[in-house]
Amino acid sequence: MKSIGVFDSGVGGLTVVKELIRQLPNENIVYFGDTARVPYGIKSRETVIRFSIENILFLLKQDVKLICVACNTASSFALPVIKNYFRAPIIGVITPGVREAVYASQNKRIGVIGTKGTIKSRTYEAEIKQLDPKAKVVTASCPLFVPFVEEGWLSGEVVLDVARGYLKPLKAAGVDTVILGCTHYPLLKSVIQQVLGKDVILIDSAKQVACEIKKILASEDLLNRGKGGKRSFYVSDNPEWFSGLAQRFLGSQLKNVKKVNNV
Amino acid sequence: MKSIGVFDSGVGGLTVVKELIRQLPNENIVYFGDTARVPYGIKSRETVIRFSIENILFLLKQDVKLICVACNTASSFALPVIKNYFRAPIIGVITPGVREAVYASQNKRIGVIGTKGTIKSRTYEAEIKQLDPKAKVVTASCPLFVPFVEEGWLSGEVVLDVARGYLKPLKAAGVDTVILGCTHYPLLKSVIQQVLGKDVILIDSAKQVACEIKKILASEDLLNRGKGGKRSFYVSDNPEWFSGLAQRFLGSQLKNVKKVNNV
Repeated sequence: MKSIGVFDSGVGGLTVVKELIRQLPNENIVYFGDTARVPYGIKSRETVIRFSIENILFLLKQDVKLICVACNTASSFALPVIKNYFRAPIIGVITPGVREAVYASQNKRIGVIGTKGTIKSRTYEAEIKQLDPKAKVVTASCPLFVPFVEEGWLSGEVVLDVARGYLKPLKAAGVDTVILGCTHYPLLKSVIQQVLGKDVILIDSAKQVACEIKKILASEDLLNRGKGGKRSFYVSDNPEWFSGLAQRFLGSQLKNVKKVNNV
Repeated sequence: MKSIGVFDSGVGGLTVVKELIRQLPNENIVYFGDTARVPYGIKSRETVIRFSIENILFLLKQDVKLICVACNTASSFALPVIKNYFRAPIIGVITPGVREAVYASQNKRIGVIGTKGTIKSRTYEAEIKQLDPKAKVVTASCPLFVPFVEEGWLSGEVVLDVARGYLKPLKAAGVDTVILGCTHYPLLKSVIQQVLGKDVILIDSAKQVACEIKKILASEDLLNRGKGGKRSFYVSDNPEWFSGLAQRFLGSQLKNVKKVNNV
């Protein structure tokens, strides 16, 4: 019984795992978090591509049937280059989010927030424009959001102050829909919503990603027909720290996180 | 003409290079910043030791006569283990700072701030106690300080607010001396001083480290007798980003930063 392989630079990708478990409870999942080299958002395109390939090769060794790049930076930088390298289908987190945002937006002014790498890659802009050439896209990188989430600072005046600064250009442009273009950001949803106002739609791609994976597995007749999937979690460093944060992302505790060298 | 080798997880170690250039202008310096795997402060002891050994091996290939571990996390975790592995002398940033702090403190209440890794290692506490068993040591990890510095947030209400929270236990304990136990922190000196009050002495180990290196080179007859040292800078990722930040740490621009794979 082959598994769905999921990787991220660290813990953020667990938001995708949570949705996969909900939508595909019978699938086996192998997760890899590259905690020895986290974060990816400040690293170069070339380095993120190298890391992504190494992570995919690790997952392939675990006998996976499909790979999910549950990291926006890796999806932005690496996916366009490597998507046809491997036999297994590779799903990123960009396209599903873009599709939902373009569908949701009424005024066709769409905001995208993400890491420096994700924003610099301009992948979101390109994909939105491809789907709707008339859409206006406003982007902002929010480099302190990841440290905030990893420190557990999910509310409070400091976080709110920083969010106000980052989101100013999106507010000024009057966007009605904002893509949370980093798997950490859903944890700051209430702060972001407070700053942008309650009418702005926030798109968290995890649901759509799981939905797309379900579709692909079904169409390629790869769905697991057994009952009750197993989940394995691997990291390149700090299994205890990862287990501790997992609660916040996955909504349940994690035991048996294994430390491995992926390179 | 052999060089002084210096490594750090990223740009912070340039504060030590600045002092080396001032105190030893005729020495050649080879710097390596592990920007592909930065930061070290959130990584485990075992991983920081592995990274440190890889960085030292890279520097040894550049024909260095002495190695300076210009990173507090690497000095805390790796130095106690690896200091006798290699033929070249290895100097960390902990001991010189401790010596100065114990000398400077009048009330023998010494504060130490650093990354999670540095504080968790308890290396500073052990070294202070060894030098002065009666000293009271109060430590605090300040995980958001590194992202602040790397984002160029060196002042302002947000940074001040966060600093007030982190430094509360040090203020409460009435420390008269605080070791800035991370090479990024000297850039936040004015904020830290503002929070702690102007009478608290802040110890930035860079000067003492350069001083110690000078002593060792002199005693082992390794000082360069030529004029005008050369400096080479290597990073494992993002040479442009490194050059951009270098100005802030080194006080001068950097050209010709070379990207290499150290592993």
